[in-house]
Amino acid sequence: MLRWSGDDLGMDRWDSSMEISSLKLDYEAGIKPQHVVQAVYDRIEAYKKVQPSVWIHLQPIGDVMRAANDLLIRWPDEAERPPLWGIPFSVKDNFDIKGIPTTAGCPALVHTPDSSSPVYECCIEAGALFIGKTNMEQLATGMTGCRSPYGTLHSTFSKSHIVGGSSSGSAVTVSEGLVSFSLGSDTAGSIRVPALYNGLVGFKPTKGTVSARGVAPASLHQDCVSFLALTAKDADQVWQVCRGFDKNDFFAKFPSPFPHSNGQQTLPEHSFRFGAPPNSALDVCSSSYRQMFGQVLSILQKAGGKRVNLDWEPFAAANELLYNGSFVLERLTIFPVGWFEKNKHLLHPVTREVFEGVAARKSTAVDLFRDLHKQAECKRAVEGILDACREHRNELTVMVVPTAPFHPTIEEVDLDPVGINGKLGAFAHSANVLDLVGIALPCGTYEISEDGRVSLPFGVTILACGGRDTELIELAKALEDALTDRAEE
Amino acid sequence: MLRWSGDDLGMDRWDSSMEISSLKLDYEAGIKPQHVVQAVYDRIEAYKKVQPSVWIHLQPIGDVMRAANDLLIRWPDEAERPPLWGIPFSVKDNFDIKGIPTTAGCPALVHTPDSSSPVYECCIEAGALFIGKTNMEQLATGMTGCRSPYGTLHSTFSKSHIVGGSSSGSAVTVSEGLVSFSLGSDTAGSIRVPALYNGLVGFKPTKGTVSARGVAPASLHQDCVSFLALTAKDADQVWQVCRGFDKNDFFAKFPSPFPHSNGQQTLPEHSFRFGAPPNSALDVCSSSYRQMFGQVLSILQKAGGKRVNLDWEPFAAANELLYNGSFVLERLTIFPVGWFEKNKHLLHPVTREVFEGVAARKSTAVDLFRDLHKQAECKRAVEGILDACREHRNELTVMVVPTAPFHPTIEEVDLDPVGINGKLGAFAHSANVLDLVGIALPCGTYEISEDGRVSLPFGVTILACGGRDTELIELAKALEDALTDRAEE
Repeated sequence: MLRWSGDDLGMDRWDSSMEISSLKLDYEAGIKPQHVVQAVYDRIEAYKKVQPSVWIHLQPIGDVMRAANDLLIRWPDEAERPPLWGIPFSVKDNFDIKGIPTTAGCPALVHTPDSSSPVYECCIEAGALFIGKTNMEQLATGMTGCRSPYGTLHSTFSKSHIVGGSSSGSAVTVSEGLVSFSLGSDTAGSIRVPALYNGLVGFKPTKGTVSARGVAPASLHQDCVSFLALTAKDADQVWQVCRGFDKNDFFAKFPSPFPHSNGQQTLPEHSFRFGAPPNSALDVCSSSYRQMFGQVLSILQKAGGKRVNLDWEPFAAANELLYNGSFVLERLTIFPVGWFEKNKHLLHPVTREVFEGVAARKSTAVDLFRDLHKQAECKRAVEGILDACREHRNELTVMVVPTAPFHPTIEEVDLDPVGINGKLGAFAHSANVLDLVGIALPCGTYEISEDGRVSLPFGVTILACGGRDTELIELAKALEDALTDRAEE
Repeated sequence: MLRWSGDDLGMDRWDSSMEISSLKLDYEAGIKPQHVVQAVYDRIEAYKKVQPSVWIHLQPIGDVMRAANDLLIRWPDEAERPPLWGIPFSVKDNFDIKGIPTTAGCPALVHTPDSSSPVYECCIEAGALFIGKTNMEQLATGMTGCRSPYGTLHSTFSKSHIVGGSSSGSAVTVSEGLVSFSLGSDTAGSIRVPALYNGLVGFKPTKGTVSARGVAPASLHQDCVSFLALTAKDADQVWQVCRGFDKNDFFAKFPSPFPHSNGQQTLPEHSFRFGAPPNSALDVCSSSYRQMFGQVLSILQKAGGKRVNLDWEPFAAANELLYNGSFVLERLTIFPVGWFEKNKHLLHPVTREVFEGVAARKSTAVDLFRDLHKQAECKRAVEGILDACREHRNELTVMVVPTAPFHPTIEEVDLDPVGINGKLGAFAHSANVLDLVGIALPCGTYEISEDGRVSLPFGVTILACGGRDTELIELAKALEDALTDRAEE
């Protein structure tokens, strides 16, 4: 295993995996954070030729080198180093970082904050190295990656296929090994969908259990700070550092304890129960996705999962609530009163079209209350389906879905930007509406060109009841090798 | 202590206190439930001359006698009797009881349910004796007791003063010793205000911790099944029987555990911290109420409370949200779509006026989302003020308020039904909007006629953070003698 080249441990080149565990081994072996920083910036420079618009703000290398140096001064004793010591990360450009403009992909609404979001601070306090802020779908509205005034990105697997959004740049930085993880947000699938299209893990915790303060809102009742990483183990490490109750976050909460669980989170044993959407719900999927999904379900059974019949209807109903009812009007509250009407010409054409459509809906408060009642009904039904009350004490009950139904090309999206985007969330929105915890996991690739030269990633999302974050991430860690065939490598 | 008259324990007349503990002593002494039932019906018959419209449905005495007889058959062994064995109770007429029409004070919307509300079933299973369903403010909309097509009630302390609502008949039945407790609902103060005006204890638990299934909704996000009783100890006993997670109640929840509390509810020790609204907020009160409130604050200090300065602003802001923003539009969702426009002539004139006013507001979904964001902000602020995170580990922090600002006459309300009603909730609404737990406690009386023949009751409500139900009720039990001067009797 050649992890670096160079004549000694003070070598100039380091070129290894950005997995957190791998980096930690390198640091134990004597690699210095500065070497990693240099390698990261070399990669970033080289990657500009592939996709020039990954970053909205790239931290000057000198600043990062100083931060790397400070790590050695602050924690000289290896044994005392915090969990993300020397781990490079990127941040979606809707997180506030003191002194750096926050654009949320919308230059017309840029502001330069005088304090940083707590979750960013958690990473810094844990020793992580901030590299830069990433391109994103404008105002976190969309799941394609094609709605940014900073440029459209493509999947790291194919120049013609979409990267996914809204955490588009974040996904590229992790997938291409420019950083180890990225902080993003997930309002309707914005972490999970780009995780899918770039072969990554995307983890959406229970809403309110990670501080969302200092993150530009998209839809406050749905927004969830989330994580992109190379593996479930890495996502877990980052989440462990960032999780916690922030009493100054208006939507912060503790996961509700359910009966019989006594508020204790227990790790799942080797068996788990899983359901999947019925074939009729999978009709929206491409044939490749349907085929891959079927294979994944078989793998899950081989890995000890018990396939059970779980009612899909309340998930589907909740999914509809997000964009086909009144909930979407929450997006208008992100603008100062009157701003949108006066300034909509400043938005990306597709974002403008979307917001015009939303504003034209004229849903009343009564409509919204009726939708909130439906939401409560769906939420309670899904809690029953996902066994919130734990009749199956030693098993975690989950719903497994394709993260998105298909992988469109950029050209397809450009021809029908709103229509295609609307289809991509078929299996994603319910997690936000129902406040589920979800983890998107890569599940290998499938070939799309006859010569086998282009393969695209496939992935599923595993959904569990809100509050079951630890159990779900432990399950994901146990499953990921089987799902990605790493065990066979 | 003469508890009954008659020549032996098989006597015909029983005429004692309806306090639960007192009744239990009587049962231990050999009184039979049938004697209590007979006495209850004698009282009910006699009271019809005072107020004929207390009941919407009175259970036939024969049925109750049979139920009383069944109690002896089902639980022959005294030691095995459940906690409410032989305790008579009434139910506000917005609770479903199988086979009995539910009117919610609105004959145009009556329905006869084929199953009973779980909370009613809890009482029956605990051995309580159902006596009847009580008059109420139409559709639980209002706090005066003057908006019922079944007739206006008056305070049990004064024929010219309002009874309070919306649980008006419930309050009369408990205050007059016709039953020991009553099941009611509290959407904006509907248990606490009638408790105040009739010298009772009114307990509003944390929303969702008692099943609200089978209770006609008034405003689903605020509605809370609540209890009227003669003492805090009695309210506690009823609550203990009724509390619990109902997985079929869409709004059921477990109280959120806060940090440092580990989800455990600890009983308060002998000290507690309390705040009160500033003098400026008390301007709305009558001079009698201001004076009585001052006395109560002194009593609380003598009883071991530490008076602290707690910010009132977020409580006031939350209070405003309920009726002066978009939240009130939730009330329109109780009607089938289109029903109100077609049938509003069937409503009580004041209810109709209120609903017309609400329907004219035309609040949009965006307005409601902005109000929901404000609510989340107020909620978080109040959690900080009420020490949700328990910096003061061994003390409960509470806000003490006059339950209502003054006690109007029926004539005053008739002259300005909407205006006066609007003022009565000044200290009540925030408990619902902020999901606090609240207990209204009687605090003695004050004379209003020069000859001293008419006295009116005064009372305060103690508010604690949602989830602190046990702690608050224990505090109330410890304080109630001091507050009502019972200790001196």
